[in-house]
Amino acid sequence: MTKKEIERAFIKYVKEYQDLNGVIPHVFDQPPTALEFLQKCVHPNRPALIKGAFDHWPANELWTDEYLRMKMKDQKITVAVTPNGQADAVTYDPKTDQEYFVMPHEEQMTFDSFLTHLGSSSQQQKEQGTPSSSSSPAYYISLQNGSLPLEYSDLEDDIDPDIAWCSEALGCQPDAVNFWFGDARSVTSLHKDPYENCYAVLRGEKTFILFPPSEYMCLHESTYPSAIYTPSKAGFDLTPSPGIQVPWIPVDPLRPDFARYPRFKYAKPMVITVRQGEMLYLPSLWFHHVSQAGENGVIAVNYWYDMNYQHAMFPSMGLTRRLVSEIIDGQPTLDMASDDDDDQ
Amino acid sequence: MTKKEIERAFIKYVKEYQDLNGVIPHVFDQPPTALEFLQKCVHPNRPALIKGAFDHWPANELWTDEYLRMKMKDQKITVAVTPNGQADAVTYDPKTDQEYFVMPHEEQMTFDSFLTHLGSSSQQQKEQGTPSSSSSPAYYISLQNGSLPLEYSDLEDDIDPDIAWCSEALGCQPDAVNFWFGDARSVTSLHKDPYENCYAVLRGEKTFILFPPSEYMCLHESTYPSAIYTPSKAGFDLTPSPGIQVPWIPVDPLRPDFARYPRFKYAKPMVITVRQGEMLYLPSLWFHHVSQAGENGVIAVNYWYDMNYQHAMFPSMGLTRRLVSEIIDGQPTLDMASDDDDDQ
Repeated sequence: MTKKEIERAFIKYVKEYQDLNGVIPHVFDQPPTALEFLQKCVHPNRPALIKGAFDHWPANELWTDEYLRMKMKDQKITVAVTPNGQADAVTYDPKTDQEYFVMPHEEQMTFDSFLTHLGSSSQQQKEQGTPSSSSSPAYYISLQNGSLPLEYSDLEDDIDPDIAWCSEALGCQPDAVNFWFGDARSVTSLHKDPYENCYAVLRGEKTFILFPPSEYMCLHESTYPSAIYTPSKAGFDLTPSPGIQVPWIPVDPLRPDFARYPRFKYAKPMVITVRQGEMLYLPSLWFHHVSQAGENGVIAVNYWYDMNYQHAMFPSMGLTRRLVSEIIDGQPTLDMASDDDDDQ
Repeated sequence: MTKKEIERAFIKYVKEYQDLNGVIPHVFDQPPTALEFLQKCVHPNRPALIKGAFDHWPANELWTDEYLRMKMKDQKITVAVTPNGQADAVTYDPKTDQEYFVMPHEEQMTFDSFLTHLGSSSQQQKEQGTPSSSSSPAYYISLQNGSLPLEYSDLEDDIDPDIAWCSEALGCQPDAVNFWFGDARSVTSLHKDPYENCYAVLRGEKTFILFPPSEYMCLHESTYPSAIYTPSKAGFDLTPSPGIQVPWIPVDPLRPDFARYPRFKYAKPMVITVRQGEMLYLPSLWFHHVSQAGENGVIAVNYWYDMNYQHAMFPSMGLTRRLVSEIIDGQPTLDMASDDDDDQ
């Protein structure tokens, strides 16, 4: 009874937020000032599409396959490899008839062979139609935590070390700058990050399906045993990681299962396609699902800035998780949840 | 059982916020820039004490009793009159053995006679000691909603029409500028407002006892029948306003009754005394209790700026009220609660 009351209170909250905000992002035809950005985006915690934010980067011209291949030479890099392009996602394993939070297989290879893999896979796509129908694995460079300075130092000079108006608005430098290179086969499942995120697309386009923190209750977060893809003769096996439970969101906004996840019907997605040359401001704690498309793969660079932990928004998310997942859904405690899960 | 779980979840939330923030306000030794103000105060929703914010106002020199008397001539003004200095507060009525939300008696008088009343009452205080022991009524000019332009147009030129760096930070002009004149007998009970509040003290000092929005659950908000003070031979009677119920906070942070309001023990007040020449930034939705002291009364001017309703903070407060007051405490719905209650 009381659980139903709690659910009703949250539904009312979700709708109130939706009524006050709608689902249209703010669009800047030119980069905002630090004050505008803080006032219109960061403070209200609202997404924005920003044009002309990095027109001056040499990377716009330089980052051809040839240039990248030349720059990276035969330096070994870490690549996420999956049978289906779904790294860090809740996945059903027919063998054990169980759902796992599955992490990708990480493979060391030269940039050269990464490009070859990407090329052949997109070749297959052209022949076989939809990305998912491809039989070869999906390869994705998606390293976080300052991977750019660490592994991509040769490319650093081609972009800015930070987003000037964002650093000024937040009064700090980015925690991490991340480099992303993949193709249409790679999709990122719904999750959130405790970062203010400036996301620049340099090749191809990315489509973000966004849900505000207020819609947490619509997303049915739950904990799943962790597993990892391991290559096998057949292709890939799922190898469980004993004892590790990961809280994650099971809803796929592209094919929502309303029978299993009924509260998802209250969610109202904001859908933003970020094209080459455009930047997305993805506010902290917003849930995001990301897919991508591009003839020759998709390249992006994003800047993670620490969110403001003074704000009640952060502890509020903890409260909401306890009320929704623990009390309404009777889940075990989610406090082990790392809030700095991988991002895309 | 579930109610206890909800309460435990909120207690954890209250403590998490306290651990992340503490109870020391930010102090600016000179006015902040719009960007600093937005970044350090408005965005994190944290109070600040600001020095030198209105050193340039003519009012600092001009506003003597003589000047005010001269300026206001015998123009009639509205004055809040109460037997005890408690306007807009939950008050026990021995006659009916019931608690009411009591509003002040409003009296029209000349500024001259207001000053005379104030003088005699503070005279009594000197003779009789504590303010509360005074037997004569308390008089307080506390008009909101742009009362300054309306009733105090003669004084408008002595102050700024807005707080420049605040208007720039929020991208709007103040909704209202309010003038306050009272003495130590007048106290404002705990409440919140949906405004970003810049509060300037021009004579005497005001002490604010503040609680963040996250501590709503500690304050035991409840609904009370409304009543109003009406003068009588004996002094004042409480005249109920039939059918009107007002949600208000009963806890008096100066004399907390922990037996009746046990959750108040989890609250951690931020106490700020704002002296002549200083300004308080009181963030939207912060609960505040205000007392004042000054030989010749206390004069203040405050600027109300609309809060940002895009932010989840506003609907969150509605959610919290439903969960705490309606579900935990089993109160009737508080949705009739006007969030733009009078402010001090």
